[in-house]
Amino acid sequence: MAELVGNLLVAQSGGPTAVINASVAGVIHEAGRHECIEEIYGGLNGIFGILREDLIDLNDEKAKAIEGMRFTPAAALGTCRYKVDFKKKPEKAAQDMDRLFQVFAAHNIRFFFYAGGNDSQDTSHKIHEEAIKRGYDLRVIGVPKTIDNDLPYTDSCPGYGSVIKYNAATVMEIGVDVGSMATDDGSCCIVEVMGRSAGWIAAGTVLAKRSPIDPPHIILLPEIPFEEEKFLAKVKETVAAFKYCIVVVGEGLKNAAGEEIGADKTRVDAFGHPVLSGAADRLAEIVQGKLNTKTRTVKLGYAQRAAAHFASLTDANNAFACGEAAVRAAVEGKSGYMVKIVRNPVTDAAGRTTIKWSTDIHPLAEVANVEHFIARDWIDEDGFLPNDKFIEYARPLIEGEVKPIMEGGLPKYVTLEKNRVDKQLSPLA
Amino acid sequence: MAELVGNLLVAQSGGPTAVINASVAGVIHEAGRHECIEEIYGGLNGIFGILREDLIDLNDEKAKAIEGMRFTPAAALGTCRYKVDFKKKPEKAAQDMDRLFQVFAAHNIRFFFYAGGNDSQDTSHKIHEEAIKRGYDLRVIGVPKTIDNDLPYTDSCPGYGSVIKYNAATVMEIGVDVGSMATDDGSCCIVEVMGRSAGWIAAGTVLAKRSPIDPPHIILLPEIPFEEEKFLAKVKETVAAFKYCIVVVGEGLKNAAGEEIGADKTRVDAFGHPVLSGAADRLAEIVQGKLNTKTRTVKLGYAQRAAAHFASLTDANNAFACGEAAVRAAVEGKSGYMVKIVRNPVTDAAGRTTIKWSTDIHPLAEVANVEHFIARDWIDEDGFLPNDKFIEYARPLIEGEVKPIMEGGLPKYVTLEKNRVDKQLSPLA
Repeated sequence: MAELVGNLLVAQSGGPTAVINASVAGVIHEAGRHECIEEIYGGLNGIFGILREDLIDLNDEKAKAIEGMRFTPAAALGTCRYKVDFKKKPEKAAQDMDRLFQVFAAHNIRFFFYAGGNDSQDTSHKIHEEAIKRGYDLRVIGVPKTIDNDLPYTDSCPGYGSVIKYNAATVMEIGVDVGSMATDDGSCCIVEVMGRSAGWIAAGTVLAKRSPIDPPHIILLPEIPFEEEKFLAKVKETVAAFKYCIVVVGEGLKNAAGEEIGADKTRVDAFGHPVLSGAADRLAEIVQGKLNTKTRTVKLGYAQRAAAHFASLTDANNAFACGEAAVRAAVEGKSGYMVKIVRNPVTDAAGRTTIKWSTDIHPLAEVANVEHFIARDWIDEDGFLPNDKFIEYARPLIEGEVKPIMEGGLPKYVTLEKNRVDKQLSPLA
Repeated sequence: MAELVGNLLVAQSGGPTAVINASVAGVIHEAGRHECIEEIYGGLNGIFGILREDLIDLNDEKAKAIEGMRFTPAAALGTCRYKVDFKKKPEKAAQDMDRLFQVFAAHNIRFFFYAGGNDSQDTSHKIHEEAIKRGYDLRVIGVPKTIDNDLPYTDSCPGYGSVIKYNAATVMEIGVDVGSMATDDGSCCIVEVMGRSAGWIAAGTVLAKRSPIDPPHIILLPEIPFEEEKFLAKVKETVAAFKYCIVVVGEGLKNAAGEEIGADKTRVDAFGHPVLSGAADRLAEIVQGKLNTKTRTVKLGYAQRAAAHFASLTDANNAFACGEAAVRAAVEGKSGYMVKIVRNPVTDAAGRTTIKWSTDIHPLAEVANVEHFIARDWIDEDGFLPNDKFIEYARPLIEGEVKPIMEGGLPKYVTLEKNRVDKQLSPLA
């Protein structure tokens, strides 16, 4: 095989994470080691920006900015929710593909890396197939990214370890706070975390438990249909035992009919407008109304996926390694793969097991649009807590702390200068 | 003056903070240096528990647990919302005082330290006055504590620096996250923080701004009456300029009529029950409804005051120093005072100003029930952002990071063994 020489394009897609920039830093770092890679470009706002030829020259960024990406949350290149959708909009998708390959050709892009979740892996797969169809020599490698942890084949998804580390610490802290105020009247606090369909994020807060009596006492996963009576009985039992109860709920919690608890259509204001509220607020109304137990809510929202001030070093390192591995695979001639994280347990002479992390690649054709859920036997029979199997899986993902550079008491996150690559094409119609 | 010899009692009251345990650690640390202090007792759940003779022996705790209190959030001794209320319940209050002094006498308590906010300082003041009236030789010193930062005379309140450090970092992180997703459609994120009447906590998030264009773009303080039209115009202008807008709101935001925005009585479910929601959700409905701008909310709730994983070292050190100073003052014969924090700016040869912190004491008679608000001239004329005067005040409070001991990727907070002191009295009726 003749060596492919040309330019590299990396972009980010979907909801940001605390470590998605670490993956881009890994791509840039590894790319610098290969002569076949000439220019290193970043696509702004994912495919959305690439269609507009919004490219920046990453070699023009300061070295310390690239280094700072290893601890800077959110998408330094900007991200998008744009999908090249051959199923629902085949005509538009075909137009997009034409334009994409015009942009690739105009800038001699030969190595393309897209960091994202399920949709983005699907997009990468489509681009890989199109390149073959069009006879355009291109290496496409997907870089996994999603706090939802729902990509298949990879041990875990970069971003997940950090979100559960932060959320578990937060639930632990809320737990000691509420516990220290507990009186005979009892109280309840409900913490809402992200996760529309898979409960990986909510489940991860179980790591806050160092003993069976520690909070969180109840974790409600979107996978387990919500049963109000059973839930109220469990809250009541917990308050009776400990004087307080900490509940974690995944935002996408559903009832047996598949309706989201937090998207209750009966909640309207005086003008008939739907009231914006979430699963936690809805549950608080139920607990307060039916048990007369004082209940407060916490909704971590975007804070949880951006919390680089307490990100997992294991997660950040794995994210970086995924970026490096993507470039290595492409340089070796691979295309149409997603990088995956591999866990290698190593037991030392004293019987202690630690994890050695590595990467491998998996065909995008098998990855795209497959959603990975928590196994039912990783959750207690009553559905209220993940069990030891889950904990054994999740614990190593939160090891170690990323140490952002601090200035004036706050993290000094980096921003890129974003020097634009000259456009070669006429603007997008 | 004959030296007073006897036992010490320390207790915690009101909402916990990330550093209220540091104050107790300071009390214990300093108490160990004075021979006139014999036993060191902790009162469980503040006055509420002391009335029940629920005392523990703090000298019986492990040294590393006491040390660990310097980075452990919440109230290690337990806290309470109980008030000895001579105004509303004079008979009950008189009974409580009788009982309190029975407990003090039964355990030879001669040094009493109460860490808390306005109500607790009032309680300390009452106890001091009662001791004089009863001719019971007792030294009472109040230790300041409140994330609300609304105690007078002290430069700042232990707990405040940590809550604004965490909140500012969180708003900064949410800002880069939302900014990296921003598209021409525009988006808004509203972060709700604590603060019922004073806006100190909301104001503190301004520290996230390193340049005028940085988020937060709007901070809504409870002190400034909310004007919907003016607010919407500002959000619209911000989204037009930056494609996104980050709003911080103090939970107690009120309209011109003094009604809380988040406690809107028009919000009921299909059964007529009031909908539990907060200021942020209400504002999100307004922004989404009137501007058609996609809006998400974050409600930090208890997480913000318990976030010892990112507490301010300055704050924790000041909290510890307040505990030490309380004991020193009492040993020197003072009673009826609150410790206050004093800021001493020191300018070096290069013209750089740093703060040297010290403590002093202030008569409780002047402190009790006085609420300290942000000066109006520390806030921009349009009321949407604190100005440089506020920033100059707040910045030094968030300097440095507390480093909790970590285990398995999470902070290893301490719990006390709580060995009970034998009860001497008959149970409380």
